[in-house]
Amino acid sequence: MEAAVACLAEHGWAGSTVAVVAERAGVSRGAAQHHFPTREDLFTAAVEYVSEERSLALRALFPDGAADRRAVVAAVVDLYTGPLFRAALHLWVAASNEEQLRPRVTELEARVGRETHRIAVDLLGADESRPGVRETVQGFLDMARGLGLANLLTDDTARRERVVTQWAALLEHALD
Amino acid sequence: MEAAVACLAEHGWAGSTVAVVAERAGVSRGAAQHHFPTREDLFTAAVEYVSEERSLALRALFPDGAADRRAVVAAVVDLYTGPLFRAALHLWVAASNEEQLRPRVTELEARVGRETHRIAVDLLGADESRPGVRETVQGFLDMARGLGLANLLTDDTARRERVVTQWAALLEHALD
Repeated sequence: MEAAVACLAEHGWAGSTVAVVAERAGVSRGAAQHHFPTREDLFTAAVEYVSEERSLALRALFPDGAADRRAVVAAVVDLYTGPLFRAALHLWVAASNEEQLRPRVTELEARVGRETHRIAVDLLGADESRPGVRETVQGFLDMARGLGLANLLTDDTARRERVVTQWAALLEHALD
Repeated sequence: MEAAVACLAEHGWAGSTVAVVAERAGVSRGAAQHHFPTREDLFTAAVEYVSEERSLALRALFPDGAADRRAVVAAVVDLYTGPLFRAALHLWVAASNEEQLRPRVTELEARVGRETHRIAVDLLGADESRPGVRETVQGFLDMARGLGLANLLTDDTARRERVVTQWAALLEHALD
């Protein structure tokens, strides 16, 4: 799963096949193809698996739940700046033009999106029964995805840290 | 230029060639290739040209400068939900794996990003001499890009309008 995500992040959808991933992971092509008959099977499963791993790791960073919001904002944004986001982005963009990939990736995106939203609400201690709070958190997650996109071609770390600091303060105000 | 952007938005980088665009635009392949010797030339020029057109159109929507912020926020977000954003996204993602495309798209992204930032600052009436205001506007533009990404596979209009309403109110507060 990790090899599939790394392959997709580095080579894109066009350069990613079951055979390439099998070689990278040190397993036989037959074994890989037994578990994942098509490349759609392999790469959607890999992005889902690694997303779940990252979600668990994010929750584990804040074992006591709602925590320092600046730290939570930074940790959530971090979800979108590594190889997993890059791999997911390649999958999304490929799915926008490939009919056999599209429904699977749409469903995967919705499932991962809902889970990330739940985690963000919990860790930010956001009270979604209050008007506007749900949309505040959603907009923050959209911003995190946009920051991921801005990091695709260049190292955007310095600018991103300043934006995170400012938006953590805006969220602090909006959620209190 | 419009035909090249539409082609890129619909078929992605792999399906976009000078020949396909020439046919779509109703010009000869030779004429197209005279102006744009490579596909890198054609598609980066097209995304830049259409971005400039969209920027001019955005300014023209608000001829008196700083205006109703809800309307400005919605209009800026609209920049990221049509075929131009889809085309630019295909170009960015292809550039992340293709060495001959990468420097040109990186430079293009920086130029278009600076111009969009300038327009947003003007139309929002944001005073960047105040601490945090620059990062507030940057984070808003990152959010707009993230909203564009969320609209790639499904029609996200209803959710996006609620997010825009809420964040327009938060920005109103942050910029005053």
